[in-house]
Amino acid sequence: MIYNEMQIPDHIIELDKNSPLESKKSEFLLPDDTIYMDGNSLGPTTKSALDEIETTTKAHWRNDLISSWNKHSWITLPQQIGEKIAPLLGAKSSEVIGCDSISVNLFKLLSAALKINHSRNIIVSESGNFPTDLYIAEGLESLLGKTKCSLKTVEKSAIIDSLNTDVAVLMLTHVDFRSGEKLDIRAITKAAHDKGILVLWDLAHSAGALKLDLDHDNVDFAVGCGYKYLNGGPGAPAFVYVAERHIKTIEQPLRGWMGHTSPFDFTPSYKPATDISKMLCGTPSVISMASLNGALDVFQDVDMAVIEQQAHALKQTFLSTLTNEAITDLKLITPTNSQSQGSQLSFTHEYAFELSQALIANKIIVDFRAPNVLRLGFTPLYLEHRHVYLAATILTTLLKHQEYLKPQFRERKAVT
Amino acid sequence: MIYNEMQIPDHIIELDKNSPLESKKSEFLLPDDTIYMDGNSLGPTTKSALDEIETTTKAHWRNDLISSWNKHSWITLPQQIGEKIAPLLGAKSSEVIGCDSISVNLFKLLSAALKINHSRNIIVSESGNFPTDLYIAEGLESLLGKTKCSLKTVEKSAIIDSLNTDVAVLMLTHVDFRSGEKLDIRAITKAAHDKGILVLWDLAHSAGALKLDLDHDNVDFAVGCGYKYLNGGPGAPAFVYVAERHIKTIEQPLRGWMGHTSPFDFTPSYKPATDISKMLCGTPSVISMASLNGALDVFQDVDMAVIEQQAHALKQTFLSTLTNEAITDLKLITPTNSQSQGSQLSFTHEYAFELSQALIANKIIVDFRAPNVLRLGFTPLYLEHRHVYLAATILTTLLKHQEYLKPQFRERKAVT
Repeated sequence: MIYNEMQIPDHIIELDKNSPLESKKSEFLLPDDTIYMDGNSLGPTTKSALDEIETTTKAHWRNDLISSWNKHSWITLPQQIGEKIAPLLGAKSSEVIGCDSISVNLFKLLSAALKINHSRNIIVSESGNFPTDLYIAEGLESLLGKTKCSLKTVEKSAIIDSLNTDVAVLMLTHVDFRSGEKLDIRAITKAAHDKGILVLWDLAHSAGALKLDLDHDNVDFAVGCGYKYLNGGPGAPAFVYVAERHIKTIEQPLRGWMGHTSPFDFTPSYKPATDISKMLCGTPSVISMASLNGALDVFQDVDMAVIEQQAHALKQTFLSTLTNEAITDLKLITPTNSQSQGSQLSFTHEYAFELSQALIANKIIVDFRAPNVLRLGFTPLYLEHRHVYLAATILTTLLKHQEYLKPQFRERKAVT
Repeated sequence: MIYNEMQIPDHIIELDKNSPLESKKSEFLLPDDTIYMDGNSLGPTTKSALDEIETTTKAHWRNDLISSWNKHSWITLPQQIGEKIAPLLGAKSSEVIGCDSISVNLFKLLSAALKINHSRNIIVSESGNFPTDLYIAEGLESLLGKTKCSLKTVEKSAIIDSLNTDVAVLMLTHVDFRSGEKLDIRAITKAAHDKGILVLWDLAHSAGALKLDLDHDNVDFAVGCGYKYLNGGPGAPAFVYVAERHIKTIEQPLRGWMGHTSPFDFTPSYKPATDISKMLCGTPSVISMASLNGALDVFQDVDMAVIEQQAHALKQTFLSTLTNEAITDLKLITPTNSQSQGSQLSFTHEYAFELSQALIANKIIVDFRAPNVLRLGFTPLYLEHRHVYLAATILTTLLKHQEYLKPQFRERKAVT
C-alpha cells in the first residue's frame, strides 16, 4: 500500500500514543491496510458483536431452540439494548428501547405526538432533512388527510421563525447527513416548547458519536440508528426514546403483540404495556439485535464527551494536513465551528463521486452523497491520527494530479 | 435417554426409509437426542442459514464493509428472499418481498386495502385470530377513527355470513395458531370477492408447511412469517404478497426510503417504486435477512405438496401410536379431516402446561398455548416417523402415570 511507505510525523504518532481511547482499537476488527472513514454510514465489526452473533446462533438457537426466548433472554433484547444505549443519550434506561427501523419508529412517534397535541395538525421539518424522515411524515399526511396532519418543510435558517401555535410537532435531525452540521438541541427544543410544540429528534448521525443530554435538554421524543456509530451491523435495529413524562400517556398506532402488557396472555383486545415496551410492535429480529447488543459493549466504559473531543481532534489533524491547494480545490460545507459539527466532514467538489472512488481505490473508505458531496467520518474508537493524516495526504495528492479523472473512477452504483 | 432404549417397530423404520424427504434431514442441525415438535413456533438451524450468517458477518461485513451493500447484494436481500418464497406460495417472484415483521406488514396492507376500497370502512376478522392481527387492526381504527376504519370480529363459523357490501377487507389467518384448523383460502376468497371485499391472508402457520396457490386462488394480499416453518432464525423478517393486479395502484403509508423508486437520489418528496419494492419501509436488517436467505435454500428442490403429504403421514403415525386411553384423556381440537389441518396437532387437557413441561423434560420439545392447549408441530423436513412414534409413546406413558403432576413441571414462564 502506498501509505505503508509514507512517513508519519512524530507529532502525529505522539497524538495517537496519548489518545484516551487507545485501548479501544483492539476491540474492532478492521481489514488490514484499510482506513475506514465511513463509520457514519456503517460501523465496522467488533469482536463483541461477532461473538454475540456466534453464541446466539450456534449455541442458543441451535441447541436450546425455542427455550432461548427465556433461557437466553431473547425476549428482553429490546430492553437490554435500551439500557445500554440510554447512557449514551443522557437518558434513563426506562426511556429507551431497541426496535424496528428509524422509519417505522418515526411513524409511531409522529402519530403519537399528533395525538397528544390533537388540537394542532402541523408537522414542521427541515427541507434538507434525511429523506426517509420527510417521506414518513408525508405517508402519515396521506393516511390521515391534511386537516389532521400537514407536513411543512422550511429551510434550516427558518426553523425558529416557523414555530407557531398551529404546529403540533417539530421533527429535526440533529446532525445533517450531507453537511455534517449539528443543530442546538437544547435551544431549539426550548423555542418549540415555548409555543407548545413537541419535539422529535432524529439522532441517526449523533448516537455513539456525540455527547447527548436528552433528559437535561427536555427533548420529548427521539429515534436513532443502530448501524452507524453504534456499530450494530448492517441494518441493525433502531431505537426509540420517549421522555419519562410522556410514557404513561403516549399511544402509538402500530399495536403489535410485543407492545402488549402481557403478550403471552393472547387477549383479543390490545392493552398497551405501561412502560417503554409500549413502543414495540412485532417480534424482535433476534440475530440482528444480538449483534447490536454485543457491539454496544464497546461503549460500556467510555465517556461520550471523550469520544466527541477525540473526533474533533481527528478532524483538526485531517484539515491541518490538507495543503492550501487542496483546501482551495474542495469546498468544506461542514461549519468550521466545532460546536456546530457532528462527527463527519463534508466537502463539495465537481468530481466528488470520482474522488470518493479514487480514495476507495487507495483503501481509504469514504462515501459520496448526490449530487456532489464527499463525506468523511471521524470515529475515534477505531480511527487514529495517523490514519487521517494519511487520508489527507493521499487526498491532497489525488487532487494535485487530478487522478480522480481516470476512467475507472466513473462507474456509479448505489451505496448507502 | 428413555427413548434410546425403546424399540421402534419395523413398519415405522420402513416409513422413514421410504420418505421422499429423507435427504433433507442432513441439512438441519438439531441437538442430539432431541425430538423437535415446535417448528411451528421457531424453526431450527440449518447449515445453510448458519453459513450465510457467517459469510455475511465475518467475510462481507468485516472485510468489505460498506461496499457489501452492492458487492454482496445486501441491498436486494428483500427481493432475493421474495424470489425464494414465491414458489412456496404459488406466486410470482414479482409479487413477494421480505421485510419488517408480520405486524408492521399487516398495518401496511390493511391501510392500503382500505384506500383501494375507500367507500367502505369495515375490516372483518375472526375473534380467535392471532392477537397481533387484531391489535394492528385496532391500532389503525384508533388512528383513523371508526368512520374510516372499523374492526368487526366474528366467530369462525360466522365468517361467510358476515360478508356484505360495507366490508372493505376480510383479514384471516389460514391456519389457526391454537387449534391448527385450516381455512379454505379459495372458497372464502371467492365468497368475499363476490361482495367486492378484498382479502388479506396471514400465512404465519402455512408458508413452508402447506401447499399454497395464492395466484390461482385469487388472493389479494398476504403476509407470512420467516421464523416458523421457513426456519429463518428467531424473529426473522416476515414477507408480503401483493397480487400482480394490485401492484401498480397499491399505496401503503409507511413510506420509508427503501420503498422509494430511487432511494439514493435522496429526493425530498416520496415517489414509490413501481414494483413490489414499494412495500418496503426502512433499511433491511441484513444479518437476520441473510439467515432467512440461507435457510430458504433448503426449499429450492422440494415440492410443497410432498411436504404437506409427509406432515399428514407423520400426524397419522403419531395419532395411531397414542393408546385409546391417551386419546380419551386428551381432547384433539384440530379437525380430524386432513383437508382442514395445518401442520400441527393441538390437544386440550386440564394440565396441558404441565404436560408440555413433562414432554420437554423428556427432550420432546412441544409448546403450550393458554389456557389449556398442548401444541405439536409436524415438520417432515427434519422430523421422522420414528420421532413422532417415540413422542406418542412417551406422551402415553406420561398420561398413564400422571407424571405431569410432579411439582417440577408447574413453573410457568412466557414462551413464544
